[in-house]
Amino acid sequence: MVYLDYNASTPVDQRVLSLVAEAHEAYGNPASSHHKLGHAAAELIEEARDRVACLFTRRSQDIIFTSGATEAAVLGLVGAMLGARGRPNAVVSTTEHKAILAAAELGARLTGGEIRKAKVGEDGIIDLAHLAELVDESVSLVAVMAANNETGVIAPVSDVVDIAHQSECLVFIDATQLVGKGSLHEAASAADLMICSSHKIYGPKGAGALVASRTTQKAIVPLMPGGGQERGIRGGTQNTPSIVGFGLAAELAMKEQAADEARIGQLAEELLAFLMSELSGVRLNSGKAKRLSNTLNVRFEGADAEAVMASMPDVLVSSGSACQSAVPSPSHVLLAMGRSRREASESLRISLGRPTTGEEIRQAGRSIVEAVSRVRQLTSD
Amino acid sequence: MVYLDYNASTPVDQRVLSLVAEAHEAYGNPASSHHKLGHAAAELIEEARDRVACLFTRRSQDIIFTSGATEAAVLGLVGAMLGARGRPNAVVSTTEHKAILAAAELGARLTGGEIRKAKVGEDGIIDLAHLAELVDESVSLVAVMAANNETGVIAPVSDVVDIAHQSECLVFIDATQLVGKGSLHEAASAADLMICSSHKIYGPKGAGALVASRTTQKAIVPLMPGGGQERGIRGGTQNTPSIVGFGLAAELAMKEQAADEARIGQLAEELLAFLMSELSGVRLNSGKAKRLSNTLNVRFEGADAEAVMASMPDVLVSSGSACQSAVPSPSHVLLAMGRSRREASESLRISLGRPTTGEEIRQAGRSIVEAVSRVRQLTSD
Repeated sequence: MVYLDYNASTPVDQRVLSLVAEAHEAYGNPASSHHKLGHAAAELIEEARDRVACLFTRRSQDIIFTSGATEAAVLGLVGAMLGARGRPNAVVSTTEHKAILAAAELGARLTGGEIRKAKVGEDGIIDLAHLAELVDESVSLVAVMAANNETGVIAPVSDVVDIAHQSECLVFIDATQLVGKGSLHEAASAADLMICSSHKIYGPKGAGALVASRTTQKAIVPLMPGGGQERGIRGGTQNTPSIVGFGLAAELAMKEQAADEARIGQLAEELLAFLMSELSGVRLNSGKAKRLSNTLNVRFEGADAEAVMASMPDVLVSSGSACQSAVPSPSHVLLAMGRSRREASESLRISLGRPTTGEEIRQAGRSIVEAVSRVRQLTSD
Repeated sequence: MVYLDYNASTPVDQRVLSLVAEAHEAYGNPASSHHKLGHAAAELIEEARDRVACLFTRRSQDIIFTSGATEAAVLGLVGAMLGARGRPNAVVSTTEHKAILAAAELGARLTGGEIRKAKVGEDGIIDLAHLAELVDESVSLVAVMAANNETGVIAPVSDVVDIAHQSECLVFIDATQLVGKGSLHEAASAADLMICSSHKIYGPKGAGALVASRTTQKAIVPLMPGGGQERGIRGGTQNTPSIVGFGLAAELAMKEQAADEARIGQLAEELLAFLMSELSGVRLNSGKAKRLSNTLNVRFEGADAEAVMASMPDVLVSSGSACQSAVPSPSHVLLAMGRSRREASESLRISLGRPTTGEEIRQAGRSIVEAVSRVRQLTSD
């Protein structure tokens, strides 16, 4: 079996897993400030907060722990839209993750505003001129993902921020896919709100973060007040083991990102070169756009992606994002990039990760070539 | 160290912990329907869903997994309030958990309605006559907790449901503390919405459930649509290991509840009898009300609870709920029961659990008697 679906989820790093197991000993409720088991748990959470803050070169107080990126998106995006008086609208790029689009729609439903969608080019890069047309004083927030989950295309975050800030809009950056795979510096220094997820960076599921300065936090209507945890923005008993694991995963993502990016990128290039040399009609959907080194979104002309995947059950890849895969509809990301439904349905997302080896890549390459050839043969006249 | 704060959080049962460790192997995204690692994770989640459904004697489709009870409360309570047209108001009991009160306030803020609070008697039991006065056609939902987290007092759920359903209001029951400690039958058969949490029943943190029929689910505005997981009500990648652990914890809670309740109840009665025999001025705040067998909310006249706890660092109990403990204000539950601020500040919550032993109870009893005596001596003229 070769797992090449790391953009959907990652296994927990062994170093993280050991720490998570230990953290189960600190079972007290972190809010139990009257006794040592509560203190111990709270202390572990603060240590993890420092680590995540460091990843984003932010202050610890800027980190709000959540159960994952989707929850962070709802709290940050909907919360900021509700908190902005006289600015009911929001702007998102057409290629945002479904969870962001859905959160924005909910925000607009609650504010009575509208969602405006900024187009992208055929390489997946946001159309800045169109973005500038959409942003005005009625807009509270502009949401753009730092790196796309399906294509890996990296957004020009500084340019987006410049445009949004001219109209005093907040900028919400979904950094879920960028963390551990590329430099966070540009996004972290310019964005007002960022989100990320532990299970995309070899941490446990069940943890994520909303990153925002104290000033921005105060502009948010807290949608999950609970018992006042996480500065009242995300109530509910903190998930100590997952948060502890997330903290170490964040530290490893920071320390090992450059090396991982280079090594994994080389393997990805090898795979792409092999596929292009062995097969005709292979197209990288992101074209020449700057993208995450681990992500290949590849179209195999004349080969239905579902059929290709069914034909190679031991190579685990995806069409579209994990959250869309349950519904057999073509990727909204590729459609937004101007692909036809057919072109989209012939596209595979192959995403490599920290455990990926050269041998796995050679095995996957052979399997993909065989599967694509078989499907083309079966479906040709 | 004697941990007697099980109502705040519980250690993970060893049997559950083993299963959680195994579940980390199923690291695929449960929404990755194209490959076997996705299927494996999805299958584990459905198995856990069946187990939790069984606990509530409900169908599997009635279980929406969340990150915990607070999130389930927001999704269910706020979602139902937003979904009810022409019924902007809600009724809650004054002794609800802070997370429920906060969610209701948020709901009212979003609907433009008001929150009406039903009084409780001095034993903590809801005043049904007052409840009936508050419920009318403008009310979408009545929220009452099955068993109070601070006093253990058990609510007359059937009577509440009768009153609420006369005006066609939904009934929201916070069953977080009742699960595993008392019979769920009455609540589960009558309530429209229920919530519970894994980490209160010896399962891992990071999982909880909203329990509602398909019909009720359809009446909810989904606040966390995400990628459409959990039937669109709670999007976001499911936390496979925590959900798997929650499933087994739910099964154990069901199978072992009767035996646990009896054994733990006997230890609690022993402790109360010891304290009353050794000290004067000991009052059980719940009086003669039916309560969870594991929970003692005890007032020690003339002994400040904070001072008592500080004086016995090896006995881990609480004043008020965990989520309130960070703020040194008297319990809103005890105030609602008519206690003065002073009386409330002299009250300790002692909650026993599955691991509690007779030896621990005897040790805790001696420590509490010593600490209360010491504090009384130091603070008397």
